[in-house]
Order: sequence, then structure tokens, then C-alpha cells
Amino acid sequence: MDYLKHIKNGVVIIGAGNVATHIALALKKAGYSIKKIYSQTEKSAKNLAKKIDTPYTTRLETLPDNADIYIISIKDTVIENIALNLKIQNGIVVHTAGSVPMSVFETYFDNFGVFYPLQTFTKSRLLDFSEIPICIEANSTKTENKLFALAESLSKKVNLINSEQRKILHLAAVFACNFTNHMYTIGDELLSANKMDFNLLHPLINETAKKANELRPLDAQTGPAKRNDKKTIDLHLQMLNDYPEFEKIYRFVSESIYKLTKED
Amino acid sequence: MDYLKHIKNGVVIIGAGNVATHIALALKKAGYSIKKIYSQTEKSAKNLAKKIDTPYTTRLETLPDNADIYIISIKDTVIENIALNLKIQNGIVVHTAGSVPMSVFETYFDNFGVFYPLQTFTKSRLLDFSEIPICIEANSTKTENKLFALAESLSKKVNLINSEQRKILHLAAVFACNFTNHMYTIGDELLSANKMDFNLLHPLINETAKKANELRPLDAQTGPAKRNDKKTIDLHLQMLNDYPEFEKIYRFVSESIYKLTKED
Repeated sequence: MDYLKHIKNGVVIIGAGNVATHIALALKKAGYSIKKIYSQTEKSAKNLAKKIDTPYTTRLETLPDNADIYIISIKDTVIENIALNLKIQNGIVVHTAGSVPMSVFETYFDNFGVFYPLQTFTKSRLLDFSEIPICIEANSTKTENKLFALAESLSKKVNLINSEQRKILHLAAVFACNFTNHMYTIGDELLSANKMDFNLLHPLINETAKKANELRPLDAQTGPAKRNDKKTIDLHLQMLNDYPEFEKIYRFVSESIYKLTKED
Repeated sequence: MDYLKHIKNGVVIIGAGNVATHIALALKKAGYSIKKIYSQTEKSAKNLAKKIDTPYTTRLETLPDNADIYIISIKDTVIENIALNLKIQNGIVVHTAGSVPMSVFETYFDNFGVFYPLQTFTKSRLLDFSEIPICIEANSTKTENKLFALAESLSKKVNLINSEQRKILHLAAVFACNFTNHMYTIGDELLSANKMDFNLLHPLINETAKKANELRPLDAQTGPAKRNDKKTIDLHLQMLNDYPEFEKIYRFVSESIYKLTKED
């Protein structure tokens, strides 16, 4: 918590969505002073401000200009617009986005970087922030050191990751998290439509994830596609006749599994 | 463990793969007497026999004909061939396959059914069998009761599931397990190709699975496809230019996510 010593004028949080909320809660818990929350949407700003007992605003120009860190955690497409309108002295400005390069801040600030927590956030779920990998990038060694210290005061897993790598990491995360979750959804849809309960799949889902912590997923692959069990694959495709989207996914994922496990 | 009283002549295991191995280990642990292991492949038969301290054979005709239960856990396509050649008195014959109907045994035996453990098995991983859902089906109430008792002596989660339901359950499991694992593999491939470590994704994978135990996965969905964030989606598709299989998967899964979450 060395970094606490260096932070005098506190943190400003710009955004009040899932990521902003979890970062604000973690900072608060670690003892940082959060000066103000900004969100365009008053309701969101108010909700988050209440959770961490901090003032909020919906007007960017009323944010303090002397905070030590500004954490911008909003939709990718409006980050630059915030940068354009944010008037500050010499604090550090970071965003938390996977696919936005650090250079978005280049023409606007002296000290800037990225603070990307690699996790899926839902407001209603408490998370152990210390287990979340935080990916740091900065425009100078001095700023990098500060961001690293800040990240290390929240998490045990801090990594220096440049903009190119972060883009790839975000893409990998879309597969491993968003697309994985959609595979669960398809399972749920198929079971619900046939009056079975999704919780039948819980142990399978948990074990599949656990395996991925211990084995290379390619080595853990099982199932009809890996076995090239055409009879079962054809049966499954036929069962998916009424679900054209799921049928396409079944076909292409099976082909990709067969191809990769065969090469292995 | 009531069922132990009814089993006098023990169990025969036909097959020595992942599923057969885990069932044999669980039965042994629960105190059942395993009379013999059969596998076409001597090495597999021998390995499993050694693990549970039981004789083995590679010749079907040398199996005892008076066992109480025969558990056939082999490739779907050879189940009927085993049934055709297995000469027994009046024990119960079951298979462990998701997509093979119980009727495969109809013309061969008097007492038969299905004993389908819904889990992904890897020989090298120990599993807590008591948490694995076991799906039971039988050709008579008497046999159903026996199989139910057997299953309940191994697991807390025993369900009566008919052949039609089991087929759907297996399909749902292919999505939730096999296809999920392939999403992990794609993440791993993208990271390895760019000199990053797959373990960066572990916390994300674990949290995604945990969420599915508490929320409907459709409600837990996050990411660019759900937000219909076309800029990020186009960037990702472009990044996947060198991976045509992954690009197709990205496109179709994103379309399916958008469609389902929009309808919700």
C-alpha cells in the first residue's frame, strides 16, 4: 500500500457501469480517497456515489482539476470525447478498455496510461479483486511505476501489457468468457425447451473450467467432434433443425475442434 | 448403500476408457465387488484392472454370465455389437452413453437400462463422484429401482431421464462443455501466438463458470456482441484474418448472442 502515500488529492472515477463500480469499490476498500464520480446518467452516478459515500456529478466541468488519478471507465466510443473535454492539471488519466489503444490520450494529457482489469463484472456480484489480473500501460516510466503501485495495492496479479497485446488479450477474453457464456446459454435454451433444468449442467460447467486451470485446454478436449464421431454429430445437427443459429455454431465449432485436435 | 445387500454376484465393467475408469473407481470405493474388466485393448484392460485390483480379459466370452450388473462403457457405435455377443443369465445390462437410446438392448436382454453420468472425464483427474448427476432409465420399474439405488450409493444427484431427454441433455452438454473448452482453446491459441500466457485468463474463466451457477447465463452475458459494439466486433474480425475457422465462429456466435439478448 505504498502508493497510498503518494496519493494526496485522490481519485476521480469517470463512469458508473459494471467496471467503474467494481474498481471504485476496490479503491475504497483499499483506503483511497475517491473525490468524485461522474456519469452522464444521473441515476447511475447517484447509485455508485451512494455505494462508496462520495459526491457525484453529471457535468464534466465540475470535476476537480487537481486529482492524482482520473479513471475513465465508459463505453469505448466516448473515451476520446471525454478526453477532449476533461480539463485537468497534471494528474494521470487512464482508461479501462481492452480494445482502445493508449494513444487515444496522446494529444490531450501529459501523464496517461491504461488500467485494464481482465474480468467479467456484474454489479450485483462481489468479487475478490486481489485475484483479478490488472494490465498496466503508461506513457512514461514514472507514470508506469505509479500505476503499477496502484494496481499492486488492489491485486496480486499485475502485468505490463502494451496496447497491441491488450487488444489480443481482449479478443481471447471474448472467446473464453463472452462466447463461453453463450455456450452455457444455448445449453440452457435446449434444456428449458424440453422441460429440464439448467442446474443439471452445473457440475459439468464447473469441472470444465477447473480442468482449464490445470491442463492446456487442447489436451482436455473431449466429445464427439474430437472423436470425429460422425453419427452423433449428424444426429445433433438434425436435432438443431429448429435452431438455425445454434446449428451453424455446432457445425463450425465441431470442424474447428476436429481440425485443431487432429493437428495436435 | 442399501443396494450393496442386493448385489451378490458383483459388477462387470465392459470398457476401460475415461468413463469406465471413473465409474469403476467410484464403485470400488463404495464397496462393490467388481468381478472383471473387459476391453478389446489389452493395455487399457490391464491398466484399469490394476487400478482397482480386479482380473481382466480381452475375450468377451470369458466374462462371468451371472453378474448382477454389466456396465458397458465403450464407443457408441460398438455398443450393439457387444450386446449381440454378450451371453448372460438375468443380470442388468446398462450403457453409459448420452446419445444411444435404451432400446439398443431390447432384443438382447430381459433387464436393461442406461446409467449416464453427466460429466467430462479425464483419466488423470480425480473427481468427486457424489456431485456428478447420474441419469437413469430402465425397461421395468424393478430394474429402475435397482439402478436408482446403485446410482444413489455413488451420487447425491440421481435423475430419471428418458432416452429422448437424455439425447437433448447430451447435446446441451456438448455446448456447455466441449464447445466451451474449445473457446478456451481459441483463447490459448491467440495468446500463445502472441507470447502471452493462458493463465492470464484463469480468473475470467473461473468467474464465468461461477456466475452460471447463480444467474441464468442469458442474464450474465457481457461483451461487444451483447452491446452491439460494431467497432470492436469489426476490429476483432479483422484481427482474425489469419484464422478463418476462428473468424467464422466469432461471427456466428456474436450474431447469436446479439439475437438472443435482444429478444430477452
